[in-house]
Amino acid sequence: MNIAELTTYLTETSREVDRALDRLLPAAAVKPATLHRAMRYSLFAGGKRMRPVLALAAAEACGGKREPALPAAAAVECVHTYSLIHDDLPCMDDDDLRRGRPTCHKVFGEGIAVLAGDALVTAAFEMAARIPPTKRYGVVDYVRDLAAAAGSRALIAGQVADLEAEGKKISRGQLRFIHEGKTAAMLRVSLRLGAMSANATPRQLAAVSEFGQKLGLAFQVIDDILDLTQTSEKLGKSAGKDLKAEKSTYPSLLGLPASRRIARQLTKEAVAALKPFGKNGLRLRQIADYLLVREY
Amino acid sequence: MNIAELTTYLTETSREVDRALDRLLPAAAVKPATLHRAMRYSLFAGGKRMRPVLALAAAEACGGKREPALPAAAAVECVHTYSLIHDDLPCMDDDDLRRGRPTCHKVFGEGIAVLAGDALVTAAFEMAARIPPTKRYGVVDYVRDLAAAAGSRALIAGQVADLEAEGKKISRGQLRFIHEGKTAAMLRVSLRLGAMSANATPRQLAAVSEFGQKLGLAFQVIDDILDLTQTSEKLGKSAGKDLKAEKSTYPSLLGLPASRRIARQLTKEAVAALKPFGKNGLRLRQIADYLLVREY
Repeated sequence: MNIAELTTYLTETSREVDRALDRLLPAAAVKPATLHRAMRYSLFAGGKRMRPVLALAAAEACGGKREPALPAAAAVECVHTYSLIHDDLPCMDDDDLRRGRPTCHKVFGEGIAVLAGDALVTAAFEMAARIPPTKRYGVVDYVRDLAAAAGSRALIAGQVADLEAEGKKISRGQLRFIHEGKTAAMLRVSLRLGAMSANATPRQLAAVSEFGQKLGLAFQVIDDILDLTQTSEKLGKSAGKDLKAEKSTYPSLLGLPASRRIARQLTKEAVAALKPFGKNGLRLRQIADYLLVREY
Repeated sequence: MNIAELTTYLTETSREVDRALDRLLPAAAVKPATLHRAMRYSLFAGGKRMRPVLALAAAEACGGKREPALPAAAAVECVHTYSLIHDDLPCMDDDDLRRGRPTCHKVFGEGIAVLAGDALVTAAFEMAARIPPTKRYGVVDYVRDLAAAAGSRALIAGQVADLEAEGKKISRGQLRFIHEGKTAAMLRVSLRLGAMSANATPRQLAAVSEFGQKLGLAFQVIDDILDLTQTSEKLGKSAGKDLKAEKSTYPSLLGLPASRRIARQLTKEAVAALKPFGKNGLRLRQIADYLLVREY
């Protein structure tokens, strides 16, 4: 693939997402300013915008425009950022560094960090309600899909299982449960909301769902590998923290070579899911390659 | 008014709300069980169900049935409970007792308490999306209204302002900002969602909004008074904690007699707002009297 062209696409898309977030969120000066500053501090900390990019690319793959997918893109990024803020709290992963900067609670204190996360997840639903209805989908679908992915059976289930797994040896099935919740569910819903905003056919919606599920699992296996093999500087977050927290990971359960094989297999399955799109799936495929073909 | 009849109404309504909550939330055994147990522990801790009762009574005042208002009732109770769980955390109000029982983080630990709150607010939006659309209102209205009331300019704004006011003397205007956010916004949206589920006319919707706003402010002034004048046993939560936290309250700013006058005035204004309902507003008026005519 043409790396320069993809890089331009990713950069421009991220900027467009940032503008949408800036427009959809209360300004930093809105009372209480501490809260809105904390929300923006974590949101505009230079994340990869992987979820919003997937939402917009899914809309395009379904033949839709970007504009209607922008509130979806903003919503999933707010959910992602809220989950990071809460995950970094001392009572959870207790992390000081995120996206290369001090974590929200390190800068604003724990109370404000909890509330900034709360405000971001709430804002996410307000944004989901702004996705324009299409012939096949309405706000009820957007909100229920997002709530399911962010809820107690998916994203939060993953966080809880992760928290409870610390210092324990868990099974590969439990590890997959964590990854499905913590990562796959949100990648999947990002793609689904984008696709729905473009009035996806049921077949297209099923395809992006499968793609997102496999992409999410692959991504997480690779993340586990990188946590072990890379430096904090390179990752922009504390490296080696899984080991430190005695967390079970794919590498710790199965070793590096087997983990790399699993990551490659999941990547293959993700790409295969895009088949129904024909050449309209090219951009999603490029993004998958970009996300997954890291040095692992 | 007939106290026995009202008490029966409140008891039966609370039970109906509890059944709806039980139906709409994942069972306690659903994985991860700790999370779902924690959510249910705080939700079924014997709260007054003030917000759900208001939602159902507003639907009835608008000539509607209870059934369509039940998801609204459940949603506002989930938001309320989540805000209590997070508010009780050590990094916030640091409270050990709530509704007469140990707080969520005391029983399940801080990490699970944060996540149980997160899961409840997420579930609330899933429930809001289940309120049936009417001729005048759709899911987009329900979700946006709830997100606004629970969001960074209302409920969470109140929590932040409250947190920042600790140990400081604040103005009466700032105190009102806190009360509007922490209490009035959620009472107001409870009534609004109930009314919308009953296809309220614009005039009816405006009336319940005004009623909720005034009721919320009155309730909070009375709560401040009770915190000062009652025992923990009677309140079912730690009494005197405002004084301990050096919080500004109506009594601390204006004294008890003036605070009582303000509470009475707000109560009068709340009741006056119900005028458009004629005798259909009787139940809401009774509930207001019941909530506000406490020993303060």
